[in-house]
Amino acid sequence: MWFLMNIALLGHGTVGRGVDDIIAHSVPNVQVTRILELPDRLSDPRMTASFDEILADDSVELIVECMGGIEPAHTFIAAALSAGKHVVTSNKAVVAAHFAEFAELAERNGVSFLIEAAVGGGIPWIASIEKVRRIDGVTSFSGIMNGTTNYIMDCMRKEGLDFDVALGRAQELGYAERDPSADIDGIDVANKTIITACVAFDVDCVHDLPVTGIRTVTKRDLDRFASHGLMVKLFGRGVCKDGRYAVAVEPVAIPLMSLEAAVPSNFNIVSLEGVTVGPLKFYGQGAGSLPTGNAIVQDVMDVAAGRSEHFDFSRDLIYDPSLLAGDYVIRSAVEPDHASAWAPGVWKIRNITPVQARSLLEKVWERDPTAFMASIPQEV
Amino acid sequence: MWFLMNIALLGHGTVGRGVDDIIAHSVPNVQVTRILELPDRLSDPRMTASFDEILADDSVELIVECMGGIEPAHTFIAAALSAGKHVVTSNKAVVAAHFAEFAELAERNGVSFLIEAAVGGGIPWIASIEKVRRIDGVTSFSGIMNGTTNYIMDCMRKEGLDFDVALGRAQELGYAERDPSADIDGIDVANKTIITACVAFDVDCVHDLPVTGIRTVTKRDLDRFASHGLMVKLFGRGVCKDGRYAVAVEPVAIPLMSLEAAVPSNFNIVSLEGVTVGPLKFYGQGAGSLPTGNAIVQDVMDVAAGRSEHFDFSRDLIYDPSLLAGDYVIRSAVEPDHASAWAPGVWKIRNITPVQARSLLEKVWERDPTAFMASIPQEV
Repeated sequence: MWFLMNIALLGHGTVGRGVDDIIAHSVPNVQVTRILELPDRLSDPRMTASFDEILADDSVELIVECMGGIEPAHTFIAAALSAGKHVVTSNKAVVAAHFAEFAELAERNGVSFLIEAAVGGGIPWIASIEKVRRIDGVTSFSGIMNGTTNYIMDCMRKEGLDFDVALGRAQELGYAERDPSADIDGIDVANKTIITACVAFDVDCVHDLPVTGIRTVTKRDLDRFASHGLMVKLFGRGVCKDGRYAVAVEPVAIPLMSLEAAVPSNFNIVSLEGVTVGPLKFYGQGAGSLPTGNAIVQDVMDVAAGRSEHFDFSRDLIYDPSLLAGDYVIRSAVEPDHASAWAPGVWKIRNITPVQARSLLEKVWERDPTAFMASIPQEV
Repeated sequence: MWFLMNIALLGHGTVGRGVDDIIAHSVPNVQVTRILELPDRLSDPRMTASFDEILADDSVELIVECMGGIEPAHTFIAAALSAGKHVVTSNKAVVAAHFAEFAELAERNGVSFLIEAAVGGGIPWIASIEKVRRIDGVTSFSGIMNGTTNYIMDCMRKEGLDFDVALGRAQELGYAERDPSADIDGIDVANKTIITACVAFDVDCVHDLPVTGIRTVTKRDLDRFASHGLMVKLFGRGVCKDGRYAVAVEPVAIPLMSLEAAVPSNFNIVSLEGVTVGPLKFYGQGAGSLPTGNAIVQDVMDVAAGRSEHFDFSRDLIYDPSLLAGDYVIRSAVEPDHASAWAPGVWKIRNITPVQARSLLEKVWERDPTAFMASIPQEV
């Protein structure tokens, strides 16, 4: 079990350097022998700009992909698995887009494909779902899966900042990209929600789920929710019941005294419900060099110890958004269809699916692009 | 890997029945073939009142101990391990009292000794600490490890109940025993704290740690803390630094907007801090037939899959309570030594260790047995 395993890193940015550091300091039976980098950044004797050179190196048993983006990551991962190399990745975008293909390639070539770092950074989320599923069906999951948007909402609420100021601060701290769309429009959470649904429900999850972000939220919106004892957070959610499943990404109003409302700064919290184990919640750093590097190294160590996961996409579940039907509010100068007044300039729409809610919001946005929507608890 | 494994249950109470049900429904490669029960309760053909009969049965490879209490559990576990049988237990009292002995017996006889269910019920706490420690040192842990006392504090705060009324309700719901001392005096949390420290710090943790419960807390105490933005919960805590460690069990005042303050009803939350992974928190049902049964069955499945944990008590750490030094308040008609007034009838004592705090409280209790003490954040 404690043989020496040679691995290669694709990418040596924040996450790649974290992996390199942790392995050098803490994992005696694994060594990073090759690193793929851009031609003008080959600062280390292990570095090469040629993926084919790494692929042809038979001493490399495992490839860690931490470049991000869809291409060339997709091509490289598929080639590595086809060449009989294990793959560990933190790249949620490419996994969400091609999960079933990668899992099948891994299966066919007798290697492991592991993705712990793609959702929840250092939180042992994927492994925990897999463990729960040895015994239990997972009936639902939900969570704050994006630290950037949690940081923004947390600053807005605690310090009374406007959205743009909070976003600017997140960018200064390196929590948000210069183009923050993937975070604030919910795309990052959508990728993590798709991946979680695949693992939790054994299904090749739909890619066109309803996705709404927090770009239009205002300080006044948060104050209004607070006056109802509520706080808004951006959630990814999924539910599975009677051969059907639903997934959605949207702002959700939750009680101020809930764990989710208390999640500070750029932390994540993810929850699942298992049949016998009941509800479980996991909290930690969802991003960053060392937490994400830690999750990757945990996967690498599992491969080195001969453990592997088999992702199964065989369940023939029907996608049915009505499983997540509930009440919504839309703050807008424009009155949406089927709405009743909830507060001045805020409309409540009862018992609609997340897909219907998203359609309503898009229609309102045609006339009022500042409109903000959130799912609310039934009793409010 | 998927051979059929025969196991025996010692005890068929709440937890034992949960294990029996979960294995029958969800674990095809394991079967419960023997159950130890009292002579007047042998209602099932698998049952026997003779432990020696089970011990002598060579087809039984693993024994699940869920009787509770120190004896005869201690004798039975030691005998089972010595006979080359794996042991899985949910019994925190016997593990806290004899952990090093059991671990050594398991090691010597080449079998597994697993204890996931002893701390945090269905929460994968022990396994998560072990996983984190593959890479990271654990520098501290803390948590709400007792659902009964969390339920009492939560009721008192949310519904304004007196301690006795809240305790009575916990007893009606089956959360508290008729003699609630082990819960409300912190003994249960002390056992879980000792076990956690052993696993997290690789040390044979001291047994005479300072332990203070919540027996004397009043509704007015909680109101007073709330007016300072604080909520009190019963915590088990440990810290490890520079070759030293400390552990304590006591009421701790925490910010109202923290995750710990938001833990509802009889749920648990446990936290650790790892060097690279940062803080991680785990939330779930800390007790109950199915959650605890689930944790036991997870351990059984790990043994069936050939996985085993090795608990190491070899670290030569110095026990140093000053690592947990901080500020305390004592509410009492009697003024403690070295105290300043914090509020009418409430005294603040700065920068003392949990051991000193406990001594002060015991001295105050000699004249005022209603006194209540809590650790408070430095800035209050």
